[in-house]
Amino acid sequence: MNMNDAPQPTWQLSQRARKLTSSAIREILKVTERPEIISFAGGLPSPETFPIAAMRAATDRVFANDPVAALQYAPTEGYMPLREWIAARHSSGGVTIRATQVLVTTGSQQALDLIGKVLIDPDSRVLVETPTYLGALQSFSMYEPAYASVPSDDQGLIPASLTASLTDGARLLYTQPNFQNPTARRLPLERRQALAEIARQGRFPVIEDDPYGALDYRGEPLPTLLSLAPEHIVYFGSFSKVLAPGLRVGYVIAPEELHFKLVQAKQATDLHTPILTQRIVYEAIKDGFLEQHVPTVRALYREQCAAMLAALTRAMPPGVTWNTPEGGMFVWLTLPAHIDSMALLSASVAQNVAFVPGEPFYANDPGKHTLRLCFSTVSPARINAGVDILARLIADWPR
Amino acid sequence: MNMNDAPQPTWQLSQRARKLTSSAIREILKVTERPEIISFAGGLPSPETFPIAAMRAATDRVFANDPVAALQYAPTEGYMPLREWIAARHSSGGVTIRATQVLVTTGSQQALDLIGKVLIDPDSRVLVETPTYLGALQSFSMYEPAYASVPSDDQGLIPASLTASLTDGARLLYTQPNFQNPTARRLPLERRQALAEIARQGRFPVIEDDPYGALDYRGEPLPTLLSLAPEHIVYFGSFSKVLAPGLRVGYVIAPEELHFKLVQAKQATDLHTPILTQRIVYEAIKDGFLEQHVPTVRALYREQCAAMLAALTRAMPPGVTWNTPEGGMFVWLTLPAHIDSMALLSASVAQNVAFVPGEPFYANDPGKHTLRLCFSTVSPARINAGVDILARLIADWPR
Repeated sequence: MNMNDAPQPTWQLSQRARKLTSSAIREILKVTERPEIISFAGGLPSPETFPIAAMRAATDRVFANDPVAALQYAPTEGYMPLREWIAARHSSGGVTIRATQVLVTTGSQQALDLIGKVLIDPDSRVLVETPTYLGALQSFSMYEPAYASVPSDDQGLIPASLTASLTDGARLLYTQPNFQNPTARRLPLERRQALAEIARQGRFPVIEDDPYGALDYRGEPLPTLLSLAPEHIVYFGSFSKVLAPGLRVGYVIAPEELHFKLVQAKQATDLHTPILTQRIVYEAIKDGFLEQHVPTVRALYREQCAAMLAALTRAMPPGVTWNTPEGGMFVWLTLPAHIDSMALLSASVAQNVAFVPGEPFYANDPGKHTLRLCFSTVSPARINAGVDILARLIADWPR
Repeated sequence: MNMNDAPQPTWQLSQRARKLTSSAIREILKVTERPEIISFAGGLPSPETFPIAAMRAATDRVFANDPVAALQYAPTEGYMPLREWIAARHSSGGVTIRATQVLVTTGSQQALDLIGKVLIDPDSRVLVETPTYLGALQSFSMYEPAYASVPSDDQGLIPASLTASLTDGARLLYTQPNFQNPTARRLPLERRQALAEIARQGRFPVIEDDPYGALDYRGEPLPTLLSLAPEHIVYFGSFSKVLAPGLRVGYVIAPEELHFKLVQAKQATDLHTPILTQRIVYEAIKDGFLEQHVPTVRALYREQCAAMLAALTRAMPPGVTWNTPEGGMFVWLTLPAHIDSMALLSASVAQNVAFVPGEPFYANDPGKHTLRLCFSTVSPARINAGVDILARLIADWPR
């Protein structure tokens, strides 16, 4: 049953629940469950990157070392050794992050929900990139904000566009500076410095969501906003892309005064993130495992991205444009103006190829001629086959 | 640092976040971390009840059978075999619960948050017992309702008091019919039938939160509200008290039209509950493990409860009253009118005994002379010692 066809309850729902409609992500994930589909839609990490043996060994150690603590209720803030590891991970040079700034969350999707809870009232202004992460829009929308889309180009958000009239009364600015979902673009250093300066002014928190930072193909990371303004940035990190997403372990680093509010909101939301999975993550990473593992993930995605770019160059007709990602799991396409990407999706799914249309990633402007291709779970041979089908549909699209 | 002393951010917080203050549960859990404390406060299951070997074996099977699926993103609704198990568990006689009514949650605390999200607007009326579960008040309060306390006695909520003027415009009624937290009282059959009839009228959903139902000392359960009105009750279940709370696996059974909204709200909240822990729970219980395990949990708590009741009878001065629980983890005390239980807590913690004052469990009326004693993690010898200290403080309390 399509959720839009669901019967409506006799009871009164909240305003926010009445606005909920079936999401594009959700409907698309259903399509991609069919094995014959070549799916550029999912946004799932490649299962080839899951360190199964290491996770299993870590789990064995958790059960061997302290099974009672791994099964009992635990502090809302998270497992202290993991919080300390995260703080150390983000401390270097002159930057010190304290474990007391770290809150472990049930995936970084929960960090979005908690930030919405503590910062957003109905109709309060929320600044987002153009386009921005669909999951952030879903989370924040539960708190009924008025979105203001910050002008952005192929390098990301344009700090100079953050004028007083755009930012007046803003409750937060949300950005993914590294290999953004959906565009894969990376914010250049000078823009990072400008955003860090805006964060230091303290008018509203700047949220740096960084799930893809480790997936930098050349291993040459740019400084995080957090490292540029450690007392002012709210940083979201995740183990979903470097270990495994099914564990749902993410985190928020925030100035203490916001951290306390987030902890209270989390207590009301799920008491704490499962302590078993937190301890498994800590056991898996505490002795430097990520230093050897992350390069293998990068190498896989670099190859798949190269295959995708080669296929696009070979097959796409004139008028289609795309970026050249320096990291991450996505390529962002712009179609000729006569093709609506939602209509293209219907046509391509009929030929067993799926992707995500750009539209749901825009808070305001619809972006009807854009689409996201995710290559992380698709082999080079299937990338070629899928791109061929898309290219033929686009070339033959009626004007 | 006490959270009430935390510096306030320069940014603007949401209305709900500004109302957040440090919770009694939270401050009390800090106290109980000190090993010298005899804690009747925590509300934690006894670690003696954790089936460590069974959990470990279940985890091994999960990693051996399908490790990739246990580590990848998973459907928001939950792991289908677990949903089916839950549906079958609640189907018997003429009652059929469908797996499509089941949503797996990150503990049943998350079920409270999701229900708040989809049903509560600011100032909308929410009906709760007197007293009611503190964690429910914390969750619902994020959505800023106006609570109406339903008159209740030592058998629980009084259905005849649900007059039109009390229930007019109510968005939900929240109840724990079995061994309620904090009072341990159990709702009698005829009141269950009356509540089920109110639920069938369909004016507002009746939420049956049932974490303690399995902890019935005599193994003679009363019918759940769900079984009396399966198409109308919203039922919360949990594995926290019968397996282990650190896994954070709970569930909501709801009519499909509400289920769809809860799923969408959950997607925005944490995408899904960790699939690893869901699969561990399923592997642990699928072959009937709970049938042998739950009776051992019941037997332990029955013994500890008997020790607590015997100690109270032996030591407490006249004017102190308490109930005789038929199940669960708590005893509920009423003090003489000259003793405020918050003041008693300060005095008793100074003598290394902790409990939870009744006050935070009341939505409206303060309940200053009541307190909750949890015996689940305390040995009979320490129960005796702790009750002696409390009894002496109460007997000597200045009038």
